[in-house]
Amino acid sequence: MEDSVKHYCGLFGIYGHRDAARLTYLGLYSLQHRGEEAAGIVTYDGKQMHAYKDMGLVSEVFDESSLHALPGRLAIGHTRYSTTGSSIVKNSQPLLVTYAKGSIAVAHNGNLINAFELRQQLEANGSIFQTSVDSEIILHLLARATNKEFEDDLVECVQLLKGAFSLLFLTEGKLIGCRDPNGFRPLCIGRLNNAYVLASETCALDLIGARLLREVEPGEIVVISAEGLRSLRPFKEQQIARSHCMFEHVYFARPDSIVFGESVQHVRVELGRQLAREYPVEADYVMPIPDSGNFAALGYSQESKIPYTLGMTRNHYVGRTFIQPAQEIRDLKVRVKFNPIKELIRGKRLVIVDDSIVRGTTTRARVKSLREAGAKAIHLRVSCPPIKNACFYGIDFPTKKELIANAMSLEEIRKFIGVDTLGYLSIDGLLAAVGRPGNYCTACWSGSYPIPFGEEGDKFALEKHAGQGCG
Amino acid sequence: MEDSVKHYCGLFGIYGHRDAARLTYLGLYSLQHRGEEAAGIVTYDGKQMHAYKDMGLVSEVFDESSLHALPGRLAIGHTRYSTTGSSIVKNSQPLLVTYAKGSIAVAHNGNLINAFELRQQLEANGSIFQTSVDSEIILHLLARATNKEFEDDLVECVQLLKGAFSLLFLTEGKLIGCRDPNGFRPLCIGRLNNAYVLASETCALDLIGARLLREVEPGEIVVISAEGLRSLRPFKEQQIARSHCMFEHVYFARPDSIVFGESVQHVRVELGRQLAREYPVEADYVMPIPDSGNFAALGYSQESKIPYTLGMTRNHYVGRTFIQPAQEIRDLKVRVKFNPIKELIRGKRLVIVDDSIVRGTTTRARVKSLREAGAKAIHLRVSCPPIKNACFYGIDFPTKKELIANAMSLEEIRKFIGVDTLGYLSIDGLLAAVGRPGNYCTACWSGSYPIPFGEEGDKFALEKHAGQGCG
Amino acid sequence: MEDSVKHYCGLFGIYGHRDAARLTYLGLYSLQHRGEEAAGIVTYDGKQMHAYKDMGLVSEVFDESSLHALPGRLAIGHTRYSTTGSSIVKNSQPLLVTYAKGSIAVAHNGNLINAFELRQQLEANGSIFQTSVDSEIILHLLARATNKEFEDDLVECVQLLKGAFSLLFLTEGKLIGCRDPNGFRPLCIGRLNNAYVLASETCALDLIGARLLREVEPGEIVVISAEGLRSLRPFKEQQIARSHCMFEHVYFARPDSIVFGESVQHVRVELGRQLAREYPVEADYVMPIPDSGNFAALGYSQESKIPYTLGMTRNHYVGRTFIQPAQEIRDLKVRVKFNPIKELIRGKRLVIVDDSIVRGTTTRARVKSLREAGAKAIHLRVSCPPIKNACFYGIDFPTKKELIANAMSLEEIRKFIGVDTLGYLSIDGLLAAVGRPGNYCTACWSGSYPIPFGEEGDKFALEKHAGQGCG
Amino acid sequence: MEDSVKHYCGLFGIYGHRDAARLTYLGLYSLQHRGEEAAGIVTYDGKQMHAYKDMGLVSEVFDESSLHALPGRLAIGHTRYSTTGSSIVKNSQPLLVTYAKGSIAVAHNGNLINAFELRQQLEANGSIFQTSVDSEIILHLLARATNKEFEDDLVECVQLLKGAFSLLFLTEGKLIGCRDPNGFRPLCIGRLNNAYVLASETCALDLIGARLLREVEPGEIVVISAEGLRSLRPFKEQQIARSHCMFEHVYFARPDSIVFGESVQHVRVELGRQLAREYPVEADYVMPIPDSGNFAALGYSQESKIPYTLGMTRNHYVGRTFIQPAQEIRDLKVRVKFNPIKELIRGKRLVIVDDSIVRGTTTRARVKSLREAGAKAIHLRVSCPPIKNACFYGIDFPTKKELIANAMSLEEIRKFIGVDTLGYLSIDGLLAAVGRPGNYCTACWSGSYPIPFGEEGDKFALEKHAGQGCG
Repeated sequence: MEDSVKHYCGLFGIYGHRDAARLTYLGLYSLQHRGEEAAGIVTYDGKQMHAYKDMGLVSEVFDESSLHALPGRLAIGHTRYSTTGSSIVKNSQPLLVTYAKGSIAVAHNGNLINAFELRQQLEANGSIFQTSVDSEIILHLLARATNKEFEDDLVECVQLLKGAFSLLFLTEGKLIGCRDPNGFRPLCIGRLNNAYVLASETCALDLIGARLLREVEPGEIVVISAEGLRSLRPFKEQQIARSHCMFEHVYFARPDSIVFGESVQHVRVELGRQLAREYPVEADYVMPIPDSGNFAALGYSQESKIPYTLGMTRNHYVGRTFIQPAQEIRDLKVRVKFNPIKELIRGKRLVIVDDSIVRGTTTRARVKSLREAGAKAIHLRVSCPPIKNACFYGIDFPTKKELIANAMSLEEIRKFIGVDTLGYLSIDGLLAAVGRPGNYCTACWSGSYPIPFGEEGDKFALEKHAGQGCG
Repeated sequence: MEDSVKHYCGLFGIYGHRDAARLTYLGLYSLQHRGEEAAGIVTYDGKQMHAYKDMGLVSEVFDESSLHALPGRLAIGHTRYSTTGSSIVKNSQPLLVTYAKGSIAVAHNGNLINAFELRQQLEANGSIFQTSVDSEIILHLLARATNKEFEDDLVECVQLLKGAFSLLFLTEGKLIGCRDPNGFRPLCIGRLNNAYVLASETCALDLIGARLLREVEPGEIVVISAEGLRSLRPFKEQQIARSHCMFEHVYFARPDSIVFGESVQHVRVELGRQLAREYPVEADYVMPIPDSGNFAALGYSQESKIPYTLGMTRNHYVGRTFIQPAQEIRDLKVRVKFNPIKELIRGKRLVIVDDSIVRGTTTRARVKSLREAGAKAIHLRVSCPPIKNACFYGIDFPTKKELIANAMSLEEIRKFIGVDTLGYLSIDGLLAAVGRPGNYCTACWSGSYPIPFGEEGDKFALEKHAGQGCG
Repeated sequence: MEDSVKHYCGLFGIYGHRDAARLTYLGLYSLQHRGEEAAGIVTYDGKQMHAYKDMGLVSEVFDESSLHALPGRLAIGHTRYSTTGSSIVKNSQPLLVTYAKGSIAVAHNGNLINAFELRQQLEANGSIFQTSVDSEIILHLLARATNKEFEDDLVECVQLLKGAFSLLFLTEGKLIGCRDPNGFRPLCIGRLNNAYVLASETCALDLIGARLLREVEPGEIVVISAEGLRSLRPFKEQQIARSHCMFEHVYFARPDSIVFGESVQHVRVELGRQLAREYPVEADYVMPIPDSGNFAALGYSQESKIPYTLGMTRNHYVGRTFIQPAQEIRDLKVRVKFNPIKELIRGKRLVIVDDSIVRGTTTRARVKSLREAGAKAIHLRVSCPPIKNACFYGIDFPTKKELIANAMSLEEIRKFIGVDTLGYLSIDGLLAAVGRPGNYCTACWSGSYPIPFGEEGDKFALEKHAGQGCG
Repeated sequence: MEDSVKHYCGLFGIYGHRDAARLTYLGLYSLQHRGEEAAGIVTYDGKQMHAYKDMGLVSEVFDESSLHALPGRLAIGHTRYSTTGSSIVKNSQPLLVTYAKGSIAVAHNGNLINAFELRQQLEANGSIFQTSVDSEIILHLLARATNKEFEDDLVECVQLLKGAFSLLFLTEGKLIGCRDPNGFRPLCIGRLNNAYVLASETCALDLIGARLLREVEPGEIVVISAEGLRSLRPFKEQQIARSHCMFEHVYFARPDSIVFGESVQHVRVELGRQLAREYPVEADYVMPIPDSGNFAALGYSQESKIPYTLGMTRNHYVGRTFIQPAQEIRDLKVRVKFNPIKELIRGKRLVIVDDSIVRGTTTRARVKSLREAGAKAIHLRVSCPPIKNACFYGIDFPTKKELIANAMSLEEIRKFIGVDTLGYLSIDGLLAAVGRPGNYCTACWSGSYPIPFGEEGDKFALEKHAGQGCG
């Protein structure tokens, strides 16, 4: 994977632990790969809510004093990717507000496809919006619900949402998790002694020593309170239609996580094995683009019996800022991150494995640096099919025009990138790597969207609007 | 004045200048004394709104890059005093939101006495609140108004507000200023070439070279747009009842400003003259508590013919943070700010003049340091009457219990502070210093509130609520 | 005084107090006016030295944690003015080194006129220099001295120095103060219970509650150790020739300090009285340029019987950074600092009093703003003579060419500044304000230098070199 | 390798490139692994030297403005590991001074074993020391040399040094590199168009696109000036005795570098192969401790035919600060960095490969987390022999007492760490991995020191002193 896809968001919540804020900090720490640009935590101490959020990595946003200012046994937290704009902190999550029923905070992973519509209706009825994130819409809907019980408001509100939404709510006494009926984004439930934990990925449970209970099911609301965990089912059986994001397995999730009931590293190794079956080649070494191709390369090596090696050294100090020299050094950006090991590569035939290609420019520069290091032949294997379509469920791909698989034929891509052979995994091969292939969304590759939408005009509004939201 | 009164807020807006953000920055710079804890600017560039705000002094909040990110010919800005709480930036102003009629920003100086009531009604109807400032209430009211024209919404909304409010609004094309029918807080209109300026005090006009046109009148809304300045009058004639805050003249406003049509330095000199007439005494020197007593001391000296001197050196480097030694040095806090000049004071009879006494503890420490420097006699003269009552119109005095004039008799205060004689200006003397005495509010001294309020219960709610708002 | 003269340095040391670092911090706080650009403290805890220094105001450089890291009962501190260059922290003081006799720290106020010469000799003998401050020369001289006793080294080394030097040393167990035989720069001794204090000005003693014992005498070394205070006299009687810097009284020192045995405020009032006698005029008001002309204006008012007033409001928030608007506002820099009070000035004849004029440009801009505020006549009175000569003893004036009094005749200056009449105090009048006129250096006005120097070549070297040092 | 060994230092210099500072920044960036705690660059612009250094990573220390302030075509830079103490910046390098022959800067990688002795001699002759780094000693020696030509001073000075020293000097016109006669630390020469480059490792050449010419030879001084590169040989042939640090290959150097004429990754793979031959075992997977064991694990896998896998996920966001929860989570520190992949490990027999064991505690915790993840058997293989001895040539190991291989027998270590079998590579096996085994120092394993030292007393002084220096 190149740098051109924005990650989306990570969620973590805990109920009933005296160290709630710090455990949430740790949980977000292990979900950092899901959103590097902002982080926030809201806690409830039995009397009031406390919030702290800022731009930056989890380790930059929080310190001893900010965590100290977040007392309480209930907490939810959020990591988020970048957007632009001057007063950007206000767009970070969780969002905390007060309304007629008290204080409530929300954190969201996903994308509402009817966000624009809902917001227009709310504004028409006198709502004001202080942010451009979907979560604020959800809070307005809750505030306008008029049931006696909060749970009824919640059920009513969730039924109005269309699209991808894994949600955490924190009220004055309850931790709530919710997942859309398609189950686009992951959300799991864990247990740490007497405390309940909700998290986007199981790696967050591992870090704090919690054990995995189960996933929040598609279309389920779990309400954790003094009475324990209760499950609400706002959707009818026929509305539930699993379409998990396959890209979580291909790229987003950490390899040590279990998402959608399957081990991510295992799926990735299988993708690599499948790729070796679909696109075999004679070569001296199989090597990954570190670290995105690591497990698929292992699978390819195991299936093909071609030895695995590490042909590029990754500079672990590469951060977000990097100063260019006045006189441009060719491909500096690529080289500063990965340096090919000439002594290893010279005169060798290489299979290089990566998880996906988006724009193709970074891959091209890397291939060039391998050529310069003396590679005799370079065979590129990609562990997913060509990405051709926009995602409306939370991934912020470049525009269709910028996706190389829309702009070029496979042969053109091969030439552009400069490899001897190029193999993309087939959709069938992709789905063969998971245990329940029917449960996955493949829209970005296949164009087959699990939730239908109306005319072109609508779609445009969504696309335009998606740029503002979180994902 | 001791350090125990929180300042309130400063407002500045400009319409039609290509350097709008920078001029607003300068305007806020000169209004810094009205609020030292946060600052913000919102601009409109013909297409969209831009906002930047943060905690700190104006000079700390803004730099070249933040001002650069505020393009446009329309701007409003705000300086604000401190509150507490973790995510406090969100309480700073201007507040910028979008609603059915587009984007709008608001900045507020004053205090709504029906804030609690209005907020409860709004929440009951499904509004969510992200801050605890009065301005958010005003925005919700605007968003729920259903007139065709924005000006009609504005008129309708302003009629619902009770209390003190000088307001600036920025919409997509208009700069609006508004003042409550009592005219508690100042707001003036200036002209800089073709641009219009709105500012809390005229010193902001002076700095940018604008000339004073007139005040926004009590109960007036001025709408500045491409068609020039138009005036709306949402209140009936009988609702208009001028009750300007006399404390602006005594303490808040800068001496080089004109507020409520009168020169602040002139009023202060007159207060000092009046004080000399009410409480004459034989002495060697008249000296001010720098700089709060400067002009009243000049007036006292002129009237009494006792020579004026500067008996304390003010350390101009005293900032907001100051590290205490482990072993407490007696009266260090007082001494670090002002050091009595022993050579000047030793053996002398002094009249010291200050603008007001709130808790009395700082004054006491200062008097003690003058005694230690060898003063033979110390006569304290205060250029306003004893402060005994809460202000509901925007000044955040300590609680009634903490006000020394409630806790002690005049003789007890004299003994507590440790002076030979003590003279507080009378209410009549106070009002004699201004040209139109009937136009002023003297509630904090007289207990006579210009806006009646209901039962005790209400008043409590207000007091509690006032702690959250801006002022 | 305009902004064109760099301040120089402030010194503070303490022996025998468990809170040594914090008291030094306070001492430096009150000496902040002597150097705003860097600050440092070195302490000795009985076992080792601890140092902390950085660029910035005292209150910015130190915080709880940095003071906490400075344990011990002995400390010296230094505030310093700005220089340029990238790794500038290393030029800040005190300078701490180790050499054959252990660790030693030094802090310096003044300027060595044989610095260049001494440094050349030291380098010729193999010394390396890591900074460009005079203090490093002094440490090298000490390190090369070969006496058995440290005090003998000190005596030997001090005899080699020519020029202005008030010095503090901290060794592993001793606090040492030293003043050049001319006594150019002040240095006083105080007592706080059992602790000894050394400070540039008495205002530092006042702040921590110490009492003034006496000055370190010109040509004296005081050694404070477990045995108490001992005095060394490295110079012969005939070498002692008091030539205190008169500019300390005119401008540098705080008005509440006693320097060279005289009350600074008292001298300044006398300068103003003398000025009124030398340059009487008919006027409505006497007003100072705040705060530099405050006391001289009081003196002028007292002597002339013309009422004193405050015609300009000083903005206390003006800091070191200030952002200019894109479109230049005329005289903005001047106005942002002081705003003339139009209501007070309009139609009035004013005597304005300042302590000195260096380049004249700032004064000119201020006069212009008073004219625009409507002043009918402006009479400028300056409480020292025209500054025409460089100072080799620690004041960093602009070059001779930039000094307005060298470039123009008095009448030209009057016209340039734009006043109706202009009066500079005479040298005789200047000296009449102090009790022991023969003890003062007047070189910058009179050109009569107390320490002769050789040929022009030397002088040039000095001037060039002076730019690097502290002063 | 666990976290208990401090890295040492990285050097980079360039002669004759208009972008010298930026290329040095890039060079240091790629040498970041050699020292994470401070960085500095000194440049020469034909007229004067410019310096900038600070605590932190290269990317934190430098930004556009600091690089902009480093003009010139000549530069040297340094990265350094942490020490303690308050004014620590002064200990960072390069050190820049002026002396009789002008300005000179030096940067040092290594450790002088006669540093204490030299410093005592210098202090006895009147030198003062402002830092505690060896480089300052070298500068003093240079300053005291009395030859006419600088090169002669250099030769004389270098002959006085004992121990490990790779040095860079920058003078007013020359870039100089120097390596001790044992060649302990690496230093290579590269060419970038017409510019010369000196760097600790070849990965720095790769990044900027320079090509490797050769190493600076042990005992060689290279002087690069307008006349090109000249070589000085201050040592006699019999003094040259190559004893390169084998630990560079085992751990320090980047795998993509060539040091001492051999490819680091190649040596590491060979170490792994040798380890497989010395300690074969039946297992399901070979896996590295990421990333320190990566290449040795590859070698082990290749030789043993046991499949390679990645059983732990490394969190790339782990930074230097990390907040602990109040209630200690067991082994949190270990887990936050690496999470075992349970699905991969459960029920499997694992060979885990690491490069070295120092204290053993981190390894123990990692083994425990693999056990908890369900590993059936764990066989630890270490790609170097047990570390038992102090290094006097630049590596800052813990004290001998803290080295686990001194405290326990092999069987005790196995039990302590909790593995089924434990295999350390033999010294013969270690040396078999390099082409010229006789050229290497193995003191930390074998106790056979290439440079003899005197009595115990001396050795103590060195050990004590080594704590202060850089390495």
